[in-house]
Amino acid sequence: MKAFMDKDFLLDSDTAKMLFHDYAENMPICDYHCHLSPKEIFENEQPESISQLWLSGDHYKWRAMRSAGIDEKYCTGNASPKEKFIAFATALQYAAGNPLYHWAHLELQRYFGIYTPLNAKTAEDIYEKANTAIAQGDFRPQTLIARSNVKYVCTTDDPIDDLKYHKLLAERDLPFKVLPSFRPDKALNINSDDFIEYIHKLGEAADIEIGSLPDVVSALYSRAEYFSECGCKISDQAFETPPYARADNEELNEIFAKAMLGGKVTRLEEEKYKTAIMLALGVKYHQLGWTMEIHIGAMRNNNTKMFQAIGADTGFDSVGDGAVAKPLSRLLNSLELVCSLPKTILFNLNDKDNTVLATMLGNFQSSEAESKIQFGPAWWFLDTMDGMTAQMKALGNLGILGKFVGMETDSRSFTSYARHEYFRRIMCRLIGGWVENGMYAYDEEILKEIIQGICYNNAVKYFGFE
Amino acid sequence: MKAFMDKDFLLDSDTAKMLFHDYAENMPICDYHCHLSPKEIFENEQPESISQLWLSGDHYKWRAMRSAGIDEKYCTGNASPKEKFIAFATALQYAAGNPLYHWAHLELQRYFGIYTPLNAKTAEDIYEKANTAIAQGDFRPQTLIARSNVKYVCTTDDPIDDLKYHKLLAERDLPFKVLPSFRPDKALNINSDDFIEYIHKLGEAADIEIGSLPDVVSALYSRAEYFSECGCKISDQAFETPPYARADNEELNEIFAKAMLGGKVTRLEEEKYKTAIMLALGVKYHQLGWTMEIHIGAMRNNNTKMFQAIGADTGFDSVGDGAVAKPLSRLLNSLELVCSLPKTILFNLNDKDNTVLATMLGNFQSSEAESKIQFGPAWWFLDTMDGMTAQMKALGNLGILGKFVGMETDSRSFTSYARHEYFRRIMCRLIGGWVENGMYAYDEEILKEIIQGICYNNAVKYFGFE
Amino acid sequence: MKAFMDKDFLLDSDTAKMLFHDYAENMPICDYHCHLSPKEIFENEQPESISQLWLSGDHYKWRAMRSAGIDEKYCTGNASPKEKFIAFATALQYAAGNPLYHWAHLELQRYFGIYTPLNAKTAEDIYEKANTAIAQGDFRPQTLIARSNVKYVCTTDDPIDDLKYHKLLAERDLPFKVLPSFRPDKALNINSDDFIEYIHKLGEAADIEIGSLPDVVSALYSRAEYFSECGCKISDQAFETPPYARADNEELNEIFAKAMLGGKVTRLEEEKYKTAIMLALGVKYHQLGWTMEIHIGAMRNNNTKMFQAIGADTGFDSVGDGAVAKPLSRLLNSLELVCSLPKTILFNLNDKDNTVLATMLGNFQSSEAESKIQFGPAWWFLDTMDGMTAQMKALGNLGILGKFVGMETDSRSFTSYARHEYFRRIMCRLIGGWVENGMYAYDEEILKEIIQGICYNNAVKYFGFE
Repeated sequence: MKAFMDKDFLLDSDTAKMLFHDYAENMPICDYHCHLSPKEIFENEQPESISQLWLSGDHYKWRAMRSAGIDEKYCTGNASPKEKFIAFATALQYAAGNPLYHWAHLELQRYFGIYTPLNAKTAEDIYEKANTAIAQGDFRPQTLIARSNVKYVCTTDDPIDDLKYHKLLAERDLPFKVLPSFRPDKALNINSDDFIEYIHKLGEAADIEIGSLPDVVSALYSRAEYFSECGCKISDQAFETPPYARADNEELNEIFAKAMLGGKVTRLEEEKYKTAIMLALGVKYHQLGWTMEIHIGAMRNNNTKMFQAIGADTGFDSVGDGAVAKPLSRLLNSLELVCSLPKTILFNLNDKDNTVLATMLGNFQSSEAESKIQFGPAWWFLDTMDGMTAQMKALGNLGILGKFVGMETDSRSFTSYARHEYFRRIMCRLIGGWVENGMYAYDEEILKEIIQGICYNNAVKYFGFE
Repeated sequence: MKAFMDKDFLLDSDTAKMLFHDYAENMPICDYHCHLSPKEIFENEQPESISQLWLSGDHYKWRAMRSAGIDEKYCTGNASPKEKFIAFATALQYAAGNPLYHWAHLELQRYFGIYTPLNAKTAEDIYEKANTAIAQGDFRPQTLIARSNVKYVCTTDDPIDDLKYHKLLAERDLPFKVLPSFRPDKALNINSDDFIEYIHKLGEAADIEIGSLPDVVSALYSRAEYFSECGCKISDQAFETPPYARADNEELNEIFAKAMLGGKVTRLEEEKYKTAIMLALGVKYHQLGWTMEIHIGAMRNNNTKMFQAIGADTGFDSVGDGAVAKPLSRLLNSLELVCSLPKTILFNLNDKDNTVLATMLGNFQSSEAESKIQFGPAWWFLDTMDGMTAQMKALGNLGILGKFVGMETDSRSFTSYARHEYFRRIMCRLIGGWVENGMYAYDEEILKEIIQGICYNNAVKYFGFE
Repeated sequence: MKAFMDKDFLLDSDTAKMLFHDYAENMPICDYHCHLSPKEIFENEQPESISQLWLSGDHYKWRAMRSAGIDEKYCTGNASPKEKFIAFATALQYAAGNPLYHWAHLELQRYFGIYTPLNAKTAEDIYEKANTAIAQGDFRPQTLIARSNVKYVCTTDDPIDDLKYHKLLAERDLPFKVLPSFRPDKALNINSDDFIEYIHKLGEAADIEIGSLPDVVSALYSRAEYFSECGCKISDQAFETPPYARADNEELNEIFAKAMLGGKVTRLEEEKYKTAIMLALGVKYHQLGWTMEIHIGAMRNNNTKMFQAIGADTGFDSVGDGAVAKPLSRLLNSLELVCSLPKTILFNLNDKDNTVLATMLGNFQSSEAESKIQFGPAWWFLDTMDGMTAQMKALGNLGILGKFVGMETDSRSFTSYARHEYFRRIMCRLIGGWVENGMYAYDEEILKEIIQGICYNNAVKYFGFE
């Protein structure tokens, strides 16, 4: 029996071990998409306990606890930090095969020096040890980021954000950069309850009186330029399914006007509006040299009762199964036709779409960048050993794996950088296995370039960070 | 080369062998969903031959035979029992990779003590040996069930069934319980040819004059209560895709009235009717403490010519590919909103839905039960080594595998309990592999609890049998 | 570390090695579906360089190059043959996990005797060596086909084709047969720009004045008979999703008349037209004893800019994700109902459809042929080790793998027969692994029959070539 999660965790061949330890392990991290709070990074406060660090905002963990039958009191409720930690440990004990199990143990090992398996029996002891480590050490956000060898942190920010904390952080002499990303979802969600209010705020932020759809575009363009000045290189948008429906300007303005008067627009009208905005934004992103991320397939807030009780992003989202191939193809093609398709990363949340996305890339590649259209790493529910392996196999089969920009955490937690290590082990296991089995030629120089490329170098080059 | 299907069949690591032989092998069986006939169990007749046992009603086998080019005469036709058995053996010889191949050999080993591989060359000899075993032994249903260490058999029954045989069986001193399950499909299928006739029968069974949709609900409630008195704890319903379309009472009554006058209702009207009934039934199931099983994705009776010739459930069904995420989410959410979502098990027939279902669970978990919303074991066409592994990996990745209620046979055959052994070997292979490779901590106590839980204990606790 | 792509490439067990080397390796090839040019085979010209052989028409390679960021100049542009080869080698270096990587090395080994891994560093040297081999050897199409042990080459031909080169080739004393296949896509694509022109050409070819839909059918029947006389046994049609919508003759004639007057027909009308033609063609195929191939799921010409620049089949196609189960079931059922369902091979391009197709087969099997309805081998984007393994596992799980007609190249290249070797290695790895692990009984006679059947014998028998 192999030792539990030791230094060769997941490395099942000599080549995999060599690739990981010689090339991957010590590479810096470019975390090009996450949900860390720039305010929290700036304020840099020491956490009180491992419960605060782990359980105060992580909907992955709450969800696992609920699935094990644990009461909401121990998730988002008023149980004590210690009770919550023990409840989590109890759920984790039954979570064989779940990435949370591996993430938790990697984090205990790397940040706390704790190598004991976490379960109901060991929970109390580990809780004390971890809190002693926190009490005696430095677990502030900036320290955790620096310790994790992170060079770039790209947060997720609303176009109306003033980026105050990004600016303050830029003034500091930190060993990493914190850059904003442009996430215009609220300007796209024409049917959401706060759309009118949001459009007004957007107008204020851009200092533009928004009276029509072209004004929305102007305001977004203005904010994109501001973001660009603050170091932004990436935009991000999320769709349950990609929008694609064309309309002329007259119709578009009618749709927008209807929404601004408080009317509900139809699903088709919503698609038309979103398509128009996305086509306009794509042109701007291309002009700014940005990368456009598209996250497809999340079906959010499925449990209305819990949404009303504790709000969004609390663990009640799941995977949708709409058709994506045709609208996505048309959307990208429309930008390509006007020579304005930006660098693009496509992320899917439903693994049934792996083949669709991994072949969609090839329709729109060009010499503007190496793998200009990228297949994003396995994300959220797919951010598992199986999910990452399937994503890399799909990309390997259907694209050029050696040019992959690799992992990002998509996380809200400062200890989640262990997920980059997890990804790298899985990546070295996969590629190392091919070499070990005579399926890919052993050439140190090439392997080093590919492994270090996927770990860090490809991303830094692709996004234009260096 | 490993010996053919020996005691360590499928157990590819020392830990897998240990888990299976020490913990799984001797656990009892809780077969919480099957299509065994309570009448046949009660009448308890000795079969005449292995052909009768294996080939008189098993559409899996007929289908495999037809796929090998064997004439219908040897499937459902008038060939002799021996000819049929030899024809089946000939097909089986080419069925590398098919679960039938493993099931047949496991059954030959466990019930007949025959260890020779079955093929065209050995068929005649095995036919004689098996029939000698039958002639000299006891192969009656009750004996086979008891010998298989089964403690609970949950049959599938129509609400109008009087459950006579369940009652008769309950009076016997048997080492297992035979419990009814409530399957109201015929009350849901408003567009089927025998709907009107069925509604009349339902009214008679419930002693209610059915004149409107609320009467249908009352009748079903009445029958559910009767089933509950007879020990029923489970309901089951099958949908090609889950229904979700809301309508007000007036419209619902019009739809029902139209159908009762012999008119065809539209697809949308059908959805509305089904949604209304399901929401009403969900409330009742929750009140009774029942579990609601939902089987999604079967596309039935595809071959009209054969349907007209030999009827339903004869091997002409296949896997549908409709979208399921949104209606299923809405249906469960509607019940959750009125605090009446029962314990629920979601089964998919299309493996493209694994990720959708395994993440849907998490939207509706609560402390009412451990993994209150369950991901049902790989079923029918997915009831294969690959299908079961994929289902357990999906549940492991996305839920809490340690709380899984595990296997049921979904079978019509009294020797099919070997499928529980097959499942357990695959489950121990998977979890044992994780432990062997340092991916899940080795802890005897926890592993024992998880393995025995998935084999039997979780189900018995979940359904409230003990 | 296993040696790079040596004689036991991909054969990971002793049984796999035995099956491949003893049974599979030397079997002839029946390439029952490809896009080779009968004219090129007949004209039999020696290529000038490996660039001409590999890069002058292979959109798989162009696509990989573009994905690595290589300029179009080196794909379809005016770079020199040597520059193009080096550019391809550079892309290939990063293509870990891509079948192109294995295909290229297998072709270098088998046709050129070159065993050095191809990459940017070795490209120039290999380019010279390969061209020397061409200069000193015989690389003409007929020689390559014969050297590859091919017995049947089934090309893909339009119904209006006069099959001149097939006839000329039939007069030669060649060690292989070149047979036409009937591909009526242009007669089906009622909304394409050249439909009217095509229908006129079809009328001319059939010597029929086409004024109505029944005339189209008559013309196609006439051409099918002509093809049959020329040795054709196979038809092929491609659909993004299978059509199924019924209409009466009057409506069908109106749809056809509208299209012939240059009007656009609606999507539903298009479906109705296609359904009517397919049902008529199916009857004819069945009468002629042909096999009907249906290729499902390609979404073509996604990049309008590149389509306008360099046309179709240049590497800008990808995988669609429409629902296929219901229309495909209805289409096959309609033919079965009139006792005219031909032998059929179903190919899917989206692996999400593996389970749907592999279970669809079983709905329509009969004793007319062994596995009358076949699950086609993994095709185009799925023609990878993972794709082929998944297809064979699906067929194994859900059908009768031993009766599988096996591989075809679907290729435009004369060195692509190495893909049959690739397939056979993967097939022997899969089945050999089952035997090695005690999951399928070791019986030399049966294994030989199955392996040689899947390599060659099943196809020859199924299509009626011998």
